Amino acid sequence: MITSVSNKQMKNLMKLQKSSRTRREQGLFIIEGIRMFEEVPKDRLDQVYVTEAFYEKNRGLFEKRRPDAFLAENVMEKISETKTPQGVLATVKMQEYEVADLLKENQDPLFLVLENLQDPGNLGTILRTGEGAGVDGIIMSRDTVDIYNPKVVRSTMGALFRMPFCYVADLEGTIGQLKERNIRIYAAHLEGDGFYEKDYRSGCAFLIGNEGNGLSDSITSLADEKIRIPMKGKVESLNAAIAATLMVYEALRQRL
Amino acid sequence: MITSVSNKQMKNLMKLQKSSRTRREQGLFIIEGIRMFEEVPKDRLDQVYVTEAFYEKNRGLFEKRRPDAFLAENVMEKISETKTPQGVLATVKMQEYEVADLLKENQDPLFLVLENLQDPGNLGTILRTGEGAGVDGIIMSRDTVDIYNPKVVRSTMGALFRMPFCYVADLEGTIGQLKERNIRIYAAHLEGDGFYEKDYRSGCAFLIGNEGNGLSDSITSLADEKIRIPMKGKVESLNAAIAATLMVYEALRQRL
Repeated sequence: MITSVSNKQMKNLMKLQKSSRTRREQGLFIIEGIRMFEEVPKDRLDQVYVTEAFYEKNRGLFEKRRPDAFLAENVMEKISETKTPQGVLATVKMQEYEVADLLKENQDPLFLVLENLQDPGNLGTILRTGEGAGVDGIIMSRDTVDIYNPKVVRSTMGALFRMPFCYVADLEGTIGQLKERNIRIYAAHLEGDGFYEKDYRSGCAFLIGNEGNGLSDSITSLADEKIRIPMKGKVESLNAAIAATLMVYEALRQRL
Repeated sequence: MITSVSNKQMKNLMKLQKSSRTRREQGLFIIEGIRMFEEVPKDRLDQVYVTEAFYEKNRGLFEKRRPDAFLAENVMEKISETKTPQGVLATVKMQEYEVADLLKENQDPLFLVLENLQDPGNLGTILRTGEGAGVDGIIMSRDTVDIYNPKVVRSTMGALFRMPFCYVADLEGTIGQLKERNIRIYAAHLEGDGFYEKDYRSGCAFLIGNEGNGLSDSITSLADEKIRIPMKGKVESLNAAIAATLMVYEALRQRL
Protein backbone atom coordinates (compact mmCIF):
# COMPACT_ATOMS: atom_id res chain seq x y z
CA MET A 1 0.00 0.00 0.00
CA ILE A 2 1.26 3.45 -0.93
CA THR A 3 1.23 5.64 2.18
CA SER A 4 3.18 8.68 1.08
CA VAL A 5 2.60 11.31 -1.58
CA SER A 6 6.35 11.73 -1.93
CA ASN A 7 6.35 8.36 -3.71
CA LYS A 8 7.54 8.97 -7.28
CA GLN A 9 4.39 7.51 -8.87
CA MET A 10 2.17 9.70 -6.66
CA LYS A 11 4.14 12.79 -7.59
CA ASN A 12 3.55 11.97 -11.22
CA LEU A 13 -0.20 11.58 -10.64
CA MET A 14 -0.31 15.04 -9.10
CA LYS A 15 1.50 16.44 -12.14
CA LEU A 16 -0.98 14.72 -14.43
CA GLN A 17 -3.84 16.38 -12.53
CA LYS A 18 -2.38 19.87 -12.76
CA SER A 19 -0.41 20.12 -15.97
CA SER A 20 -1.76 19.74 -19.50
CA ARG A 21 1.83 19.66 -20.72
CA THR A 22 2.63 16.62 -18.57
CA ARG A 23 -0.53 14.95 -19.84
CA ARG A 24 0.47 15.60 -23.45
CA GLU A 25 4.05 14.42 -22.91
CA GLN A 26 2.90 11.14 -21.37
CA GLY A 27 -0.22 10.67 -23.50
CA LEU A 28 -2.16 10.04 -20.28
CA PHE A 29 -4.91 11.67 -18.25
CA ILE A 30 -6.71 10.86 -15.00
CA ILE A 31 -10.25 9.71 -14.38
CA GLU A 32 -11.86 9.49 -10.96
CA GLY A 33 -14.84 7.80 -9.42
CA ILE A 34 -16.94 4.74 -10.01
CA ARG A 35 -18.98 6.15 -12.87
CA MET A 36 -15.99 7.10 -15.00
CA PHE A 37 -14.23 3.84 -14.17
CA GLU A 38 -17.26 1.93 -15.42
CA GLU A 39 -17.43 3.99 -18.60
CA VAL A 40 -13.78 3.89 -19.64
CA PRO A 41 -12.98 1.34 -22.36
CA LYS A 42 -10.82 -1.22 -20.57
CA ASP A 43 -8.14 -1.28 -23.27
CA ARG A 44 -7.44 2.37 -22.61
CA LEU A 45 -6.69 1.89 -18.91
CA ASP A 46 -3.06 2.42 -17.92
CA GLN A 47 -2.83 2.18 -14.10
CA VAL A 48 -5.68 1.70 -11.61
CA TYR A 49 -5.44 2.97 -8.02
CA VAL A 50 -7.92 2.23 -5.24
CA THR A 51 -8.30 2.52 -1.51
CA GLU A 52 -8.75 -0.72 0.40
CA ALA A 53 -12.18 0.33 1.65
CA PHE A 54 -13.38 1.01 -1.90
CA TYR A 55 -11.96 -2.26 -3.18
CA GLU A 56 -13.65 -4.29 -0.45
CA LYS A 57 -17.03 -2.72 -1.20
CA ASN A 58 -16.76 -2.96 -4.99
CA ARG A 59 -14.88 -6.17 -5.76
CA GLY A 60 -17.15 -6.90 -8.72
CA LEU A 61 -15.82 -3.82 -10.51
CA PHE A 62 -12.33 -5.29 -10.62
CA GLU A 63 -13.00 -8.75 -11.97
CA LYS A 64 -11.74 -7.90 -15.44
CA ARG A 65 -9.12 -5.41 -14.37
CA ARG A 66 -7.26 -5.77 -11.10
CA PRO A 67 -6.03 -2.60 -9.34
CA ASP A 68 -2.35 -1.89 -9.84
CA ALA A 69 -1.84 -0.35 -6.42
CA PHE A 70 -3.63 0.41 -3.19
CA LEU A 71 -3.49 3.95 -1.83
CA ALA A 72 -3.89 5.01 1.79
CA GLU A 73 -7.00 7.18 2.30
CA ASN A 74 -4.95 10.32 2.92
CA VAL A 75 -2.92 9.75 -0.24
CA MET A 76 -6.10 9.33 -2.31
CA GLU A 77 -7.44 12.54 -0.79
CA LYS A 78 -4.32 14.48 -1.74
CA ILE A 79 -4.26 13.22 -5.30
CA SER A 80 -7.97 13.51 -5.99
CA GLU A 81 -9.40 16.70 -7.49
CA THR A 82 -12.71 16.13 -5.69
CA LYS A 83 -13.40 17.01 -2.07
CA THR A 84 -14.63 13.58 -1.06
CA PRO A 85 -12.98 11.05 -3.39
CA GLN A 86 -14.90 7.82 -3.95
CA GLY A 87 -11.74 5.71 -3.75
CA VAL A 88 -10.92 4.81 -7.36
CA LEU A 89 -8.68 6.70 -9.76
CA ALA A 90 -6.95 5.63 -12.96
CA THR A 91 -4.58 6.87 -15.61
CA VAL A 92 -6.04 6.49 -19.09
CA LYS A 93 -4.43 6.61 -22.54
CA MET A 94 -5.44 9.54 -24.71
CA GLN A 95 -7.11 8.78 -28.00
CA GLU A 96 -6.28 11.01 -30.89
CA TYR A 97 -8.52 11.66 -33.88
CA GLU A 98 -7.78 13.46 -37.12
CA VAL A 99 -10.21 15.65 -39.03
CA ALA A 100 -10.24 12.91 -41.66
CA ASP A 101 -11.54 10.42 -39.05
CA LEU A 102 -14.41 12.74 -38.23
CA LEU A 103 -15.32 13.15 -41.87
CA LYS A 104 -15.25 9.44 -42.66
CA GLU A 105 -18.54 7.77 -43.51
CA ASN A 106 -20.64 10.58 -42.16
CA GLN A 107 -23.67 11.32 -44.34
CA ASP A 108 -25.02 14.76 -43.40
CA PRO A 109 -22.82 15.12 -40.35
CA LEU A 110 -23.40 17.51 -37.50
CA PHE A 111 -20.26 19.18 -36.12
CA LEU A 112 -19.36 21.71 -33.50
CA VAL A 113 -16.32 23.90 -34.06
CA LEU A 114 -15.03 25.65 -30.94
CA GLU A 115 -12.67 28.61 -31.13
CA ASN A 116 -10.68 29.32 -27.96
CA LEU A 117 -13.30 28.16 -25.45
CA GLN A 118 -11.75 28.53 -21.99
CA ASP A 119 -14.21 27.31 -19.38
CA PRO A 120 -13.75 23.60 -18.51
CA GLY A 121 -17.38 23.29 -17.39
CA ASN A 122 -18.57 24.66 -20.73
CA LEU A 123 -16.48 22.19 -22.74
CA GLY A 124 -17.62 19.27 -20.58
CA THR A 125 -21.26 20.26 -20.95
CA ILE A 126 -20.84 20.62 -24.72
CA LEU A 127 -19.46 17.07 -25.00
CA ARG A 128 -22.26 15.60 -22.87
CA THR A 129 -25.05 17.56 -24.53
CA GLY A 130 -23.49 17.15 -27.96
CA GLU A 131 -23.61 13.37 -27.63
CA GLY A 132 -27.28 13.67 -26.64
CA ALA A 133 -28.00 15.73 -29.74
CA GLY A 134 -26.21 13.27 -32.03
CA VAL A 135 -23.20 15.45 -32.82
CA ASP A 136 -20.69 13.54 -34.97
CA GLY A 137 -17.57 15.33 -33.84
CA ILE A 138 -16.11 18.36 -32.10
CA ILE A 139 -13.29 20.34 -33.66
CA MET A 140 -11.34 22.73 -31.47
CA SER A 141 -8.73 25.42 -32.07
CA ARG A 142 -5.39 24.62 -30.41
CA ASP A 143 -5.95 27.36 -27.81
CA THR A 144 -9.19 25.82 -26.51
CA VAL A 145 -9.07 24.54 -22.91
CA ASP A 146 -7.52 21.06 -22.56
CA ILE A 147 -10.22 18.42 -22.91
CA TYR A 148 -8.22 16.21 -20.49
CA ASN A 149 -8.41 18.85 -17.73
CA PRO A 150 -9.94 17.01 -14.72
CA LYS A 151 -12.92 19.40 -14.60
CA VAL A 152 -13.74 18.78 -18.25
CA VAL A 153 -13.32 15.02 -17.86
CA ARG A 154 -15.69 14.95 -14.89
CA SER A 155 -18.40 17.09 -16.45
CA THR A 156 -18.54 15.06 -19.67
CA MET A 157 -20.15 12.19 -17.70
CA GLY A 158 -18.39 9.69 -19.97
CA ALA A 159 -19.12 11.38 -23.29
CA LEU A 160 -15.35 11.97 -23.54
CA PHE A 161 -14.94 8.28 -24.40
CA ARG A 162 -17.59 8.28 -27.10
CA MET A 163 -17.48 11.67 -28.81
CA PRO A 164 -14.86 12.01 -31.55
CA PHE A 165 -12.90 15.25 -31.23
CA CYS A 166 -9.72 16.86 -32.40
CA TYR A 167 -7.60 19.92 -31.82
CA VAL A 168 -6.37 21.65 -34.94
CA ALA A 169 -3.54 24.13 -35.41
CA ASP A 170 -5.08 25.60 -38.55
CA LEU A 171 -8.76 26.18 -37.78
CA GLU A 172 -9.31 28.20 -40.96
CA GLY A 173 -7.89 25.39 -43.08
CA THR A 174 -10.07 22.84 -41.33
CA ILE A 175 -13.20 24.90 -41.93
CA GLY A 176 -12.13 24.98 -45.58
CA GLN A 177 -12.00 21.17 -45.58
CA LEU A 178 -15.54 21.02 -44.17
CA LYS A 179 -16.79 23.37 -46.86
CA GLU A 180 -15.23 21.21 -49.58
CA ARG A 181 -17.37 18.39 -48.22
CA ASN A 182 -20.48 20.58 -48.66
CA ILE A 183 -20.89 21.03 -44.94
CA ARG A 184 -22.69 24.29 -44.34
CA ILE A 185 -20.96 26.55 -41.82
CA TYR A 186 -23.01 28.59 -39.35
CA ALA A 187 -21.34 31.13 -37.07
CA ALA A 188 -23.01 31.78 -33.71
CA HIS A 189 -22.81 35.56 -33.80
CA LEU A 190 -24.58 38.49 -32.16
CA GLU A 191 -24.92 40.12 -35.59
CA GLY A 192 -26.63 37.04 -37.01
CA ASP A 193 -30.33 36.32 -37.36
CA GLY A 194 -32.96 33.81 -38.45
CA PHE A 195 -31.75 30.98 -36.23
CA TYR A 196 -35.05 29.10 -36.29
CA GLU A 197 -35.65 29.68 -40.01
CA LYS A 198 -32.65 27.80 -41.40
CA ASP A 199 -32.64 24.17 -42.48
CA TYR A 200 -30.04 22.15 -40.56
CA ARG A 201 -30.96 18.73 -41.95
CA SER A 202 -28.02 18.51 -44.36
CA GLY A 203 -24.44 18.36 -43.14
CA CYS A 204 -23.66 21.38 -41.01
CA ALA A 205 -21.21 22.78 -38.49
CA PHE A 206 -21.82 25.42 -35.83
CA LEU A 207 -18.94 27.73 -34.94
CA ILE A 208 -18.89 28.77 -31.27
CA GLY A 209 -16.47 31.41 -29.99
CA ASN A 210 -14.67 32.30 -26.78
CA GLU A 211 -16.80 33.09 -23.71
CA GLY A 212 -15.77 36.71 -23.46
CA ASN A 213 -15.00 37.71 -27.02
CA GLY A 214 -17.08 35.46 -29.23
CA LEU A 215 -15.74 34.32 -32.60
CA SER A 216 -12.80 36.11 -34.18
CA ASP A 217 -13.52 38.10 -37.32
CA SER A 218 -11.30 35.87 -39.45
CA ILE A 219 -13.18 32.72 -38.43
CA THR A 220 -16.57 34.42 -38.69
CA SER A 221 -15.77 35.50 -42.24
CA LEU A 222 -15.48 31.86 -43.32
CA ALA A 223 -19.05 31.03 -42.32
CA ASP A 224 -21.81 30.65 -44.90
CA GLU A 225 -24.21 32.39 -42.54
CA LYS A 226 -24.26 34.14 -39.20
CA ILE A 227 -27.04 33.04 -36.89
CA ARG A 228 -28.23 34.48 -33.59
CA ILE A 229 -30.49 32.77 -31.10
CA PRO A 230 -33.42 35.13 -30.36
CA MET A 231 -33.24 36.74 -26.93
CA LYS A 232 -35.99 38.52 -25.04
CA GLY A 233 -35.61 40.93 -22.13
CA LYS A 234 -32.30 42.67 -21.68
CA VAL A 235 -30.13 39.60 -22.16
CA GLU A 236 -27.13 40.52 -24.28
CA SER A 237 -25.78 37.06 -24.90
CA LEU A 238 -26.13 33.45 -23.82
CA ASN A 239 -23.45 31.31 -22.23
CA ALA A 240 -21.33 29.50 -24.86
CA ALA A 241 -22.44 26.01 -23.77
CA ILE A 242 -26.07 27.12 -23.77
CA ALA A 243 -25.78 28.55 -27.28
CA ALA A 244 -24.09 25.37 -28.54
CA THR A 245 -26.81 23.27 -26.90
CA LEU A 246 -29.64 25.18 -28.52
CA MET A 247 -28.00 24.97 -31.93
CA VAL A 248 -27.26 21.26 -31.99
CA TYR A 249 -30.65 20.41 -30.52
CA GLU A 250 -32.43 22.54 -33.13
CA ALA A 251 -30.57 20.46 -35.74
CA LEU A 252 -31.67 17.26 -33.98
CA ARG A 253 -35.29 18.48 -33.80
CA GLN A 254 -35.34 19.10 -37.53
CA ARG A 255 -33.71 15.75 -38.25
CA LEU A 256 -36.08 13.65 -36.12
CA MET B 1 -10.93 54.57 4.45
CA ILE B 2 -11.58 51.18 6.01
CA THR B 3 -8.26 49.40 6.43
CA SER B 4 -9.18 46.42 8.60
CA VAL B 5 -11.49 43.47 8.13
CA SER B 6 -12.08 43.39 11.87
CA ASN B 7 -14.19 46.53 11.39
CA LYS B 8 -17.79 45.63 12.39
CA GLN B 9 -19.23 46.58 9.00
CA MET B 10 -16.65 44.44 7.17
CA LYS B 11 -17.39 41.47 9.40
CA ASN B 12 -21.03 41.80 8.49
CA LEU B 13 -20.20 41.89 4.75
CA MET B 14 -18.30 38.64 5.12
CA LYS B 15 -21.30 37.08 6.86
CA LEU B 16 -23.56 38.28 4.06
CA GLN B 17 -21.28 36.56 1.54
CA LYS B 18 -21.25 33.25 3.37
CA SER B 19 -24.57 32.84 5.11
CA SER B 20 -27.99 32.66 3.49
CA ARG B 21 -29.50 32.97 6.98
CA THR B 22 -27.75 36.30 7.59
CA ARG B 23 -28.94 37.48 4.18
CA ARG B 24 -32.53 36.56 5.02
CA GLU B 25 -32.39 38.15 8.47
CA GLN B 26 -31.12 41.43 7.07
CA GLY B 27 -33.04 41.31 3.78
CA LEU B 28 -29.77 42.12 2.01
CA PHE B 29 -27.36 40.46 -0.40
CA ILE B 30 -24.09 41.46 -2.07
CA ILE B 31 -23.31 42.32 -5.66
CA GLU B 32 -19.83 42.75 -7.07
CA GLY B 33 -18.24 44.28 -10.10
CA ILE B 34 -18.97 47.05 -12.54
CA ARG B 35 -21.51 45.13 -14.61
CA MET B 36 -23.76 44.23 -11.68
CA PHE B 37 -23.40 47.73 -10.24
CA GLU B 38 -24.61 49.17 -13.53
CA GLU B 39 -27.54 46.76 -13.70
CA VAL B 40 -28.85 47.11 -10.15
CA PRO B 41 -31.90 49.41 -9.82
CA LYS B 42 -30.56 52.35 -7.83
CA ASP B 43 -33.47 52.36 -5.33
CA ARG B 44 -32.47 48.89 -4.21
CA LEU B 45 -28.92 49.86 -3.27
CA ASP B 46 -28.16 49.84 0.44
CA GLN B 47 -24.42 50.53 0.90
CA VAL B 48 -21.79 51.01 -1.81
CA TYR B 49 -18.12 50.18 -1.19
CA VAL B 50 -15.26 51.02 -3.53
CA THR B 51 -11.49 51.11 -3.63
CA GLU B 52 -9.92 54.47 -4.29
CA ALA B 53 -8.29 53.23 -7.49
CA PHE B 54 -11.64 52.03 -8.85
CA TYR B 55 -13.37 55.26 -7.88
CA GLU B 56 -10.76 57.41 -9.57
CA LYS B 57 -11.05 55.46 -12.80
CA ASN B 58 -14.86 55.28 -12.85
CA ARG B 59 -16.13 58.54 -11.36
CA GLY B 60 -18.96 58.70 -13.88
CA LEU B 61 -20.53 55.58 -12.37
CA PHE B 62 -21.04 57.37 -9.07
CA GLU B 63 -22.69 60.57 -10.20
CA LYS B 64 -26.14 59.48 -9.09
CA ARG B 65 -25.02 57.36 -6.15
CA ARG B 66 -21.95 58.28 -4.12
CA PRO B 67 -19.98 55.48 -2.47
CA ASP B 68 -20.69 55.06 1.25
CA ALA B 69 -17.17 53.99 2.13
CA PHE B 70 -13.73 53.45 0.66
CA LEU B 71 -12.03 50.13 1.28
CA ALA B 72 -8.30 49.45 1.25
CA GLU B 73 -7.32 47.05 -1.57
CA ASN B 74 -6.52 44.21 0.82
CA VAL B 75 -9.88 44.62 2.58
CA MET B 76 -11.73 44.48 -0.76
CA GLU B 77 -9.78 41.35 -1.65
CA LYS B 78 -10.75 39.65 1.59
CA ILE B 79 -14.43 40.48 1.28
CA SER B 80 -14.78 39.75 -2.43
CA GLU B 81 -15.80 36.29 -3.61
CA THR B 82 -13.82 36.73 -6.81
CA LYS B 83 -10.08 36.20 -7.15
CA THR B 84 -9.36 39.58 -8.70
CA PRO B 85 -12.06 41.97 -7.49
CA GLN B 86 -12.81 44.91 -9.77
CA GLY B 87 -13.09 47.33 -6.86
CA VAL B 88 -16.83 47.89 -6.37
CA LEU B 89 -19.18 45.95 -4.12
CA ALA B 90 -22.60 46.84 -2.73
CA THR B 91 -25.28 45.54 -0.41
CA VAL B 92 -28.65 45.37 -2.15
CA LYS B 93 -32.19 45.02 -0.77
CA MET B 94 -33.94 41.77 -1.61
CA GLN B 95 -37.14 41.99 -3.60
CA GLU B 96 -39.83 39.54 -2.70
CA TYR B 97 -42.54 38.34 -5.05
CA GLU B 98 -45.64 36.29 -4.33
CA VAL B 99 -47.11 33.66 -6.64
CA ALA B 100 -50.01 36.08 -7.14
CA ASP B 101 -47.58 38.69 -8.53
CA LEU B 102 -46.29 36.20 -11.06
CA LEU B 103 -49.80 35.29 -12.18
CA LYS B 104 -50.97 38.88 -12.55
CA GLU B 105 -51.75 40.09 -16.07
CA ASN B 106 -49.91 37.27 -17.77
CA GLN B 107 -51.76 35.97 -20.80
CA ASP B 108 -50.37 32.52 -21.73
CA PRO B 109 -47.50 32.75 -19.30
CA LEU B 110 -44.36 30.65 -19.42
CA PHE B 111 -43.08 29.47 -16.04
CA LEU B 112 -40.27 27.35 -14.69
CA VAL B 113 -40.85 25.44 -11.47
CA LEU B 114 -37.68 24.19 -9.77
CA GLU B 115 -37.75 21.48 -7.11
CA ASN B 116 -34.69 21.35 -4.86
CA LEU B 117 -32.10 22.49 -7.40
CA GLN B 118 -28.77 22.69 -5.59
CA ASP B 119 -26.11 23.93 -7.99
CA PRO B 120 -25.66 27.73 -7.87
CA GLY B 121 -24.31 27.80 -11.44
CA ASN B 122 -27.37 25.97 -12.71
CA LEU B 123 -29.78 28.39 -11.04
CA GLY B 124 -27.86 31.40 -12.34
CA THR B 125 -27.83 30.01 -15.87
CA ILE B 126 -31.55 29.27 -15.66
CA LEU B 127 -32.30 32.88 -14.71
CA ARG B 128 -30.13 34.29 -17.51
CA THR B 129 -31.37 31.89 -20.18
CA GLY B 130 -34.95 32.07 -18.88
CA GLU B 131 -34.98 35.82 -19.41
CA GLY B 132 -33.68 35.24 -22.94
CA ALA B 133 -36.50 32.80 -23.66
CA GLY B 134 -39.16 35.17 -22.32
CA VAL B 135 -39.94 33.22 -19.13
CA ASP B 136 -42.49 35.14 -17.01
CA GLY B 137 -41.44 33.80 -13.63
CA ILE B 138 -39.49 31.16 -11.73
CA ILE B 139 -41.08 29.32 -8.82
CA MET B 140 -38.78 27.39 -6.48
CA SER B 141 -39.30 24.94 -3.64
CA ARG B 142 -38.00 26.25 -0.28
CA ASP B 143 -35.12 23.78 -0.36
CA THR B 144 -33.74 25.11 -3.66
CA VAL B 145 -30.31 26.79 -3.44
CA ASP B 146 -30.43 30.42 -2.26
CA ILE B 147 -30.86 32.74 -5.25
CA TYR B 148 -28.83 35.38 -3.37
CA ASN B 149 -25.82 33.07 -3.07
CA PRO B 150 -22.90 35.07 -4.58
CA LYS B 151 -22.29 32.42 -7.27
CA VAL B 152 -25.90 32.54 -8.40
CA VAL B 153 -25.95 36.34 -8.36
CA ARG B 154 -22.81 36.50 -10.51
CA SER B 155 -23.93 33.94 -13.08
CA THR B 156 -27.34 35.57 -13.66
CA MET B 157 -25.54 38.46 -15.42
CA GLY B 158 -28.19 40.87 -14.12
CA ALA B 159 -31.25 38.74 -14.89
CA LEU B 160 -31.72 38.51 -11.10
CA PHE B 161 -33.00 42.10 -11.15
CA ARG B 162 -35.46 41.52 -13.96
CA MET B 163 -36.83 37.99 -13.63
CA PRO B 164 -39.74 37.62 -11.16
CA PHE B 165 -39.22 34.66 -8.85
CA CYS B 166 -40.47 33.26 -5.57
CA TYR B 167 -39.71 30.51 -3.10
CA VAL B 168 -42.76 28.59 -1.90
CA ALA B 169 -43.16 26.35 1.15
CA ASP B 170 -46.01 24.39 -0.42
CA LEU B 171 -44.91 23.53 -3.96
CA GLU B 172 -47.81 21.13 -4.50
CA GLY B 173 -50.32 23.80 -3.52
CA THR B 174 -48.65 26.30 -5.86
CA ILE B 175 -48.81 23.89 -8.79
CA GLY B 176 -52.52 23.51 -7.95
CA GLN B 177 -52.89 27.29 -8.25
CA LEU B 178 -51.25 27.25 -11.68
CA LYS B 179 -53.57 24.48 -12.84
CA GLU B 180 -56.61 26.48 -11.70
CA ARG B 181 -55.40 29.19 -14.07
CA ASN B 182 -55.35 26.67 -16.92
CA ILE B 183 -51.58 26.61 -17.04
CA ARG B 184 -50.49 23.26 -18.42
CA ILE B 185 -47.91 21.49 -16.28
CA TYR B 186 -45.08 19.53 -17.94
CA ALA B 187 -42.69 17.44 -15.84
CA ALA B 188 -39.17 16.99 -17.18
CA HIS B 189 -38.88 13.27 -16.56
CA LEU B 190 -36.82 10.36 -17.89
CA GLU B 191 -40.02 8.34 -18.29
CA GLY B 192 -41.63 11.05 -20.41
CA ASP B 193 -41.75 11.37 -24.18
CA GLY B 194 -42.89 13.45 -27.13
CA PHE B 195 -41.06 16.61 -26.12
CA TYR B 196 -41.07 18.12 -29.60
CA GLU B 197 -44.65 17.09 -30.39
CA LYS B 198 -46.43 19.11 -27.70
CA ASP B 199 -47.88 22.57 -28.17
CA TYR B 200 -46.39 25.03 -25.69
CA ARG B 201 -48.05 28.17 -27.07
CA SER B 202 -50.71 28.42 -24.36
CA GLY B 203 -49.80 29.05 -20.73
CA CYS B 204 -47.44 26.38 -19.49
CA ALA B 205 -44.99 25.54 -16.74
CA PHE B 206 -42.01 23.17 -16.86
CA LEU B 207 -41.12 21.28 -13.68
CA ILE B 208 -37.38 20.66 -13.27
CA GLY B 209 -36.02 18.45 -10.49
CA ASN B 210 -32.90 18.11 -8.41
CA GLU B 211 -29.58 17.47 -10.22
CA GLY B 212 -29.05 14.01 -8.76
CA ASN B 213 -32.54 12.70 -8.14
CA GLY B 214 -34.81 14.46 -10.60
CA LEU B 215 -38.38 15.37 -9.63
CA SER B 216 -39.99 13.70 -6.62
CA ASP B 217 -42.85 11.32 -7.33
CA SER B 218 -45.36 13.51 -5.49
CA ILE B 219 -44.52 16.55 -7.64
CA THR B 220 -44.34 14.50 -10.85
CA SER B 221 -47.82 13.11 -10.18
CA LEU B 222 -49.27 16.63 -10.36
CA ALA B 223 -48.10 17.19 -13.93
CA ASP B 224 -50.48 17.00 -16.88
CA GLU B 225 -47.75 15.29 -18.92
CA LYS B 226 -44.26 13.92 -18.53
CA ILE B 227 -41.87 14.99 -21.27
CA ARG B 228 -38.35 13.82 -22.07
CA ILE B 229 -35.87 15.55 -24.33
CA PRO B 230 -34.66 13.00 -26.91
CA MET B 231 -31.11 11.81 -26.31
CA LYS B 232 -28.82 9.96 -28.71
CA GLY B 233 -25.73 7.93 -27.86
CA LYS B 234 -25.36 6.62 -24.35
CA VAL B 235 -26.33 9.83 -22.60
CA GLU B 236 -28.58 9.00 -19.66
CA SER B 237 -29.66 12.50 -18.74
CA LEU B 238 -28.94 16.14 -19.42
CA ASN B 239 -27.77 18.71 -16.90
CA ALA B 240 -30.74 20.43 -15.17
CA ALA B 241 -29.94 23.88 -16.58
CA ILE B 242 -29.53 22.41 -20.08
CA ALA B 243 -32.90 20.64 -19.86
CA ALA B 244 -34.61 23.81 -18.61
CA THR B 245 -32.97 25.78 -21.44
CA LEU B 246 -34.16 23.42 -24.15
CA MET B 247 -37.70 23.42 -22.77
CA VAL B 248 -38.21 27.15 -22.46
CA TYR B 249 -36.55 27.80 -25.82
CA GLU B 250 -38.79 25.25 -27.52
CA ALA B 251 -41.74 27.20 -26.07
CA LEU B 252 -40.22 30.44 -27.41
CA ARG B 253 -39.64 28.89 -30.85
CA GLN B 254 -43.28 27.85 -31.08
CA ARG B 255 -44.47 31.25 -29.89
CA LEU B 256 -42.37 33.31 -32.31
